[in-house]
Amino acid sequence: MGFREHLEAVVSSVNGSVVCSLVGFDGIAVDTHQPDARAEDAAAIDLSSALTEYGNLLGQLKATAQTLKTGAVGEMSVNTEKVITIMRMVNQEYYVVLALLPEGNYGKGRYALRLAAPKLAKELL
Amino acid sequence: MGFREHLEAVVSSVNGSVVCSLVGFDGIAVDTHQPDARAEDAAAIDLSSALTEYGNLLGQLKATAQTLKTGAVGEMSVNTEKVITIMRMVNQEYYVVLALLPEGNYGKGRYALRLAAPKLAKELL
Repeated sequence: MGFREHLEAVVSSVNGSVVCSLVGFDGIAVDTHQPDARAEDAAAIDLSSALTEYGNLLGQLKATAQTLKTGAVGEMSVNTEKVITIMRMVNQEYYVVLALLPEGNYGKGRYALRLAAPKLAKELL
Repeated sequence: MGFREHLEAVVSSVNGSVVCSLVGFDGIAVDTHQPDARAEDAAAIDLSSALTEYGNLLGQLKATAQTLKTGAVGEMSVNTEKVITIMRMVNQEYYVVLALLPEGNYGKGRYALRLAAPKLAKELL
């Protein structure tokens, strides 16, 4: 399986998924699965800029983890009126992000990313 | 009921709670309930600096919400090896934050903050 298959597996297993991406901390997406662009349009959200912003925050957290003594950051989520975003570290250079509609299955999304992250890490080797 | 009672209600209803605070976006905590300081010691975490850092990130998110067109930020969480942190907006000036041990009940924590936020908002009027 490649990156895309793992991203598709996340999206297909989680109700309300809008997009799932494997992204580097340099801000560049390695691969993205967005099953239905209309979902983004319907929610009238500009996901790409939001996801970039959230990725920056996750990068800041990663950088401060050593200072904060709370251990490595595993996961971060940001829930706004129009979109739920869950990010999970894949390794020190990459993270996987899943955006859901507000009515999407948040718990299932976290679970799917927890399963996908080590698989994506293997593909990146 | 005052701030403290609402914070105590959150902590007592969520397994694994370490501390619950009502904090302003100026970084100053209005009130804090920490039932057992040993829990923080046991986890060897420096929560106060971590929570300050996370609060800064939530403030950044709040500031960019207009630009991002994803709607107002309602909730943010950061999960590290040693602590789960859930933050929920109370109003434009304050948020409530709950720190849990990694084995704590994350779903119940989110639920408890969702209930507490409007009650805290009323106290702030």
